[in-house]
Amino acid sequence: MAFRIIKLTPNFARMMSTSATKVGFIGLGQMGNRMATNLINKGYKLNVFDVSPEACDAMKAKGAQVYKTTQELAKESEFVVTMLPNNDIVKETYEVMIKDGVNNKTMFVDSSTVDPSVSQYVQKIVSKAGARFVDAPVSGGVMGAQNATLTFMVGGTKEEYEHVKDFLAGMGKKITHCGTYGMGEAAKICNNMMLAISMIGTAETMNLALRLGLDAKVFNEIINSSTGRSWASEINNPVPGLNPGTPPSDGYKGGFSTALITKDLGLASSVATGSNSPIMLGALAHHIYRLMCTHDLGNKDFSVIYDFIKNKSGK
Amino acid sequence: MAFRIIKLTPNFARMMSTSATKVGFIGLGQMGNRMATNLINKGYKLNVFDVSPEACDAMKAKGAQVYKTTQELAKESEFVVTMLPNNDIVKETYEVMIKDGVNNKTMFVDSSTVDPSVSQYVQKIVSKAGARFVDAPVSGGVMGAQNATLTFMVGGTKEEYEHVKDFLAGMGKKITHCGTYGMGEAAKICNNMMLAISMIGTAETMNLALRLGLDAKVFNEIINSSTGRSWASEINNPVPGLNPGTPPSDGYKGGFSTALITKDLGLASSVATGSNSPIMLGALAHHIYRLMCTHDLGNKDFSVIYDFIKNKSGK
Amino acid sequence: MAFRIIKLTPNFARMMSTSATKVGFIGLGQMGNRMATNLINKGYKLNVFDVSPEACDAMKAKGAQVYKTTQELAKESEFVVTMLPNNDIVKETYEVMIKDGVNNKTMFVDSSTVDPSVSQYVQKIVSKAGARFVDAPVSGGVMGAQNATLTFMVGGTKEEYEHVKDFLAGMGKKITHCGTYGMGEAAKICNNMMLAISMIGTAETMNLALRLGLDAKVFNEIINSSTGRSWASEINNPVPGLNPGTPPSDGYKGGFSTALITKDLGLASSVATGSNSPIMLGALAHHIYRLMCTHDLGNKDFSVIYDFIKNKSGK
Amino acid sequence: MAFRIIKLTPNFARMMSTSATKVGFIGLGQMGNRMATNLINKGYKLNVFDVSPEACDAMKAKGAQVYKTTQELAKESEFVVTMLPNNDIVKETYEVMIKDGVNNKTMFVDSSTVDPSVSQYVQKIVSKAGARFVDAPVSGGVMGAQNATLTFMVGGTKEEYEHVKDFLAGMGKKITHCGTYGMGEAAKICNNMMLAISMIGTAETMNLALRLGLDAKVFNEIINSSTGRSWASEINNPVPGLNPGTPPSDGYKGGFSTALITKDLGLASSVATGSNSPIMLGALAHHIYRLMCTHDLGNKDFSVIYDFIKNKSGK
Repeated sequence: MAFRIIKLTPNFARMMSTSATKVGFIGLGQMGNRMATNLINKGYKLNVFDVSPEACDAMKAKGAQVYKTTQELAKESEFVVTMLPNNDIVKETYEVMIKDGVNNKTMFVDSSTVDPSVSQYVQKIVSKAGARFVDAPVSGGVMGAQNATLTFMVGGTKEEYEHVKDFLAGMGKKITHCGTYGMGEAAKICNNMMLAISMIGTAETMNLALRLGLDAKVFNEIINSSTGRSWASEINNPVPGLNPGTPPSDGYKGGFSTALITKDLGLASSVATGSNSPIMLGALAHHIYRLMCTHDLGNKDFSVIYDFIKNKSGK
Repeated sequence: MAFRIIKLTPNFARMMSTSATKVGFIGLGQMGNRMATNLINKGYKLNVFDVSPEACDAMKAKGAQVYKTTQELAKESEFVVTMLPNNDIVKETYEVMIKDGVNNKTMFVDSSTVDPSVSQYVQKIVSKAGARFVDAPVSGGVMGAQNATLTFMVGGTKEEYEHVKDFLAGMGKKITHCGTYGMGEAAKICNNMMLAISMIGTAETMNLALRLGLDAKVFNEIINSSTGRSWASEINNPVPGLNPGTPPSDGYKGGFSTALITKDLGLASSVATGSNSPIMLGALAHHIYRLMCTHDLGNKDFSVIYDFIKNKSGK
Repeated sequence: MAFRIIKLTPNFARMMSTSATKVGFIGLGQMGNRMATNLINKGYKLNVFDVSPEACDAMKAKGAQVYKTTQELAKESEFVVTMLPNNDIVKETYEVMIKDGVNNKTMFVDSSTVDPSVSQYVQKIVSKAGARFVDAPVSGGVMGAQNATLTFMVGGTKEEYEHVKDFLAGMGKKITHCGTYGMGEAAKICNNMMLAISMIGTAETMNLALRLGLDAKVFNEIINSSTGRSWASEINNPVPGLNPGTPPSDGYKGGFSTALITKDLGLASSVATGSNSPIMLGALAHHIYRLMCTHDLGNKDFSVIYDFIKNKSGK
Repeated sequence: MAFRIIKLTPNFARMMSTSATKVGFIGLGQMGNRMATNLINKGYKLNVFDVSPEACDAMKAKGAQVYKTTQELAKESEFVVTMLPNNDIVKETYEVMIKDGVNNKTMFVDSSTVDPSVSQYVQKIVSKAGARFVDAPVSGGVMGAQNATLTFMVGGTKEEYEHVKDFLAGMGKKITHCGTYGMGEAAKICNNMMLAISMIGTAETMNLALRLGLDAKVFNEIINSSTGRSWASEINNPVPGLNPGTPPSDGYKGGFSTALITKDLGLASSVATGSNSPIMLGALAHHIYRLMCTHDLGNKDFSVIYDFIKNKSGK
């Protein structure tokens, strides 16, 4: 028969297999609009909501259906992804969205970076209403959102993880199961606290090394093949020129902004307080980045700490 | 001729090639006696000096020649290795050793961990006296000294590095050229400052993660495949059980002692002051380890920081 | 006439003037029960509420009227004082207490230590319901509560401050007006952050001074007449014996507990995050006290930091 | 007789009593030249030495005798005051000055700020040569030097302290006996470490308070009558306008420079390392000031930390 000789393009094939899947997306900011666009490109049918009409219009132009309320959106969606700025907005958004009941086939996925206890609270109210919820914050930044190369850290049951895995793969390349509800958030916050510490430590170490007379390249090779190595020294070394193509080699533009790592460290401080966990270096790192924000470095890659501490007058 | 069919064992061959080489070794402590023993085993003729008669006797029993003064020892040695506890002792030892002149064929190698400015001072007086000097501090600890698997970080000219390279290979497996005089010390101090920071950061991060409910093994895999990774998280993770066969998995015994990393951080603080380099995290790490020393943890592996900060009562 | 020769005792006179004033007290813990008892002793008619029946019974035995709900209590009280453990409990208590309307003559006074934004939120809902609210956290601890020598830091309008001033004087000796709603809390949290820093600084300084060979008494006199002085060095010096009659001279018992200053520093960290204010020393102090809590020092006076850092083995 | 009716002015009387006293002064920098000038004004006969001919000429113009070598100067002086920049220069100056013997009537007074162990070393060599030595560093800065209102912190025996007391009163108004040799230095370094911590703590606290909405003047009164008070909050509050006539109210000009407190903290770090004393806040304060130096704030009053941390864009 005729149709047997049709050679499906991969894109068309993908659209076929997902054409029935309706996805709601709430929060169309820098990250959200790129993630939602990838879902459209993968063939999902997108339902969107944002407080900004412009953000909604932009997605409408790409084929999304815009909703006036999150309640309606959620009822018409098999998956609902939320990508929102903070604890309070996430809580309130879910409280409002489910207050008149839920479609019990809907799987809610919160990709915002928030306190694990917020995820746990939201999971409870969603579950009580009859639907399912996982937290799935991301790393990879705007470029990862753009290129669908994000890492998703998922908190939920094994079954829920399996249920969202392929779907999330439409926006990322690595989907990790971190444990029960909130553990995606916990993993992200903890990993980023460690990263924040490593970066300042690397900046201090490189600066000291250079001031003592070591050659940047030689010393970086030594540290990277020794016990001082970390992601910060190997992949995104804060000294300009050591890793071509990274923010430190391009005026600290792009990358992971100081403002965002400061926000994540604020969450780390908060959960450390809540769990009675001493984080001496973590808390200091938090406030060093915060200091950098007061010096108008919030929108630079966080590796700009190297520039912040090195001697301005060359003395 | 008969000798042509003799098939030399590698060991015998090595002995042959070095049988004429006389090496002086000054400082026969925990590290020094093991390093010196390796040289004897490699076939070098050892001349030794130490303030402790017992230390000298032990080396004599292994075939070394004991000297009463460093001057005589140095005059009879092609290489002189010094392995001494601190800045002042290194300075004074060299001042005394060369005060009546040197054998200008002698190459002096200081493997002590000291301020780079001490190496630079010693290099100057040795050079003025007519001989050569390089700094070559080590990493790898007592086990590395025992097994001849130390890393040597060499500060000197390219020619001097080439001259000592094979000789040092008798005590270590990695011989790195770090730059001019003092740069071996600078590299070691800076690398260890970074390591010190990473370890506390990893301990704080793992502790926080576990208190938030993450599984240690799961979270460690996440961090190690993400931006939070470092030598401390991958190779010597401070949480017992994650890296079998390491100090954290064996009651924090052996390894790199808190007392020694505290000493290295004291040097880092000193060179940071001398070079006007801000080290906020480095200085804090220094005094956290120092605090641990006041709590009698000086002789444990420095990863014991994890045990130091975690909640004692399990609350 | 007969009554002219009656010589009123001050106590009786005071009882007369306040006999008609009904006061509600919610939260009868360590602080609350002592504060409430002082009000009874001053002649106020006490209405009380607590989740613990035992706490209620104890106040009933002193003449207080126990209420089953905060709504009823509030409607029968001219002043309502709340003394509760944390942000969430304060918020929830007020939401419940006023949900069915308020007696618009009631002045609510929250003496809990919480985030200023919580006070501002509660003031708004109380005001909307038709009554008045001020925040009035205290310093002075359990002894101050017992002896009615607390300091109250009041946040509200000038009129509201004047309205509560004499009433609060029944539980304290110093009633300060700090500004608008939340500013009482802000003042307390900020003052205590400074205190927390001073105390660790004093402990480090005294310990260093003594280890360098200075006499504790001599050095303390020097610092107290110089630029290094602070409340911590003058009034509650952490070195045992310098200020007789204080916790450091009595095994660090009583006083201001490490657990409580850690709690206040948790609030300071939180408001610093919320207001984008860098607090490098404040955050580090926070986590040093938190570390001390993990070493089971939470119930000691916070000056025990001196004991925590000094060399245990006398070396 | 005629002379009996001469009523001596206090100044003249003082000149009489000291007219025979020859004083050597070595180190005529910002501090030294002002201190030496005060001695001339008090009637002492000044012998001076400095590596800068201009500095010597300036003192010559005021009546001092300039010496070419410190040896000759010392032999002709009853007191010798040294005011030099650092450890190494103090050590070397004394080694050279006394190498050919001393006038055993000379009392050497080192007013430099150096490591106590340097004072102890110098005392030993001076004593061995047959003369006496005390350390007597100062606080009070350039203004104190100018107005002869310095504080001297003396390390030596009770007798030595009594011997130098009146003499030092010619340059200062408070002469404190701190203990044995080196204890003057120890007291100064420790006091200044505490001051350095208080100032950053006060700046962080004031900034946080203001950002939370407190009025600077109101909050400063609260803190100064409470447990948060210190010299930094009361006398030199870093918020402009709170203490008229101080550096913070005059663009952070003059006062105690960030560069100098950084130098003192470098000494504190060094003696903490040498005495195994943990100084977590002290070390962090050290490197925060050092960071400020890299931002070209070295010559401002150290209270400029307030300006350094507050939000530049007013956000």
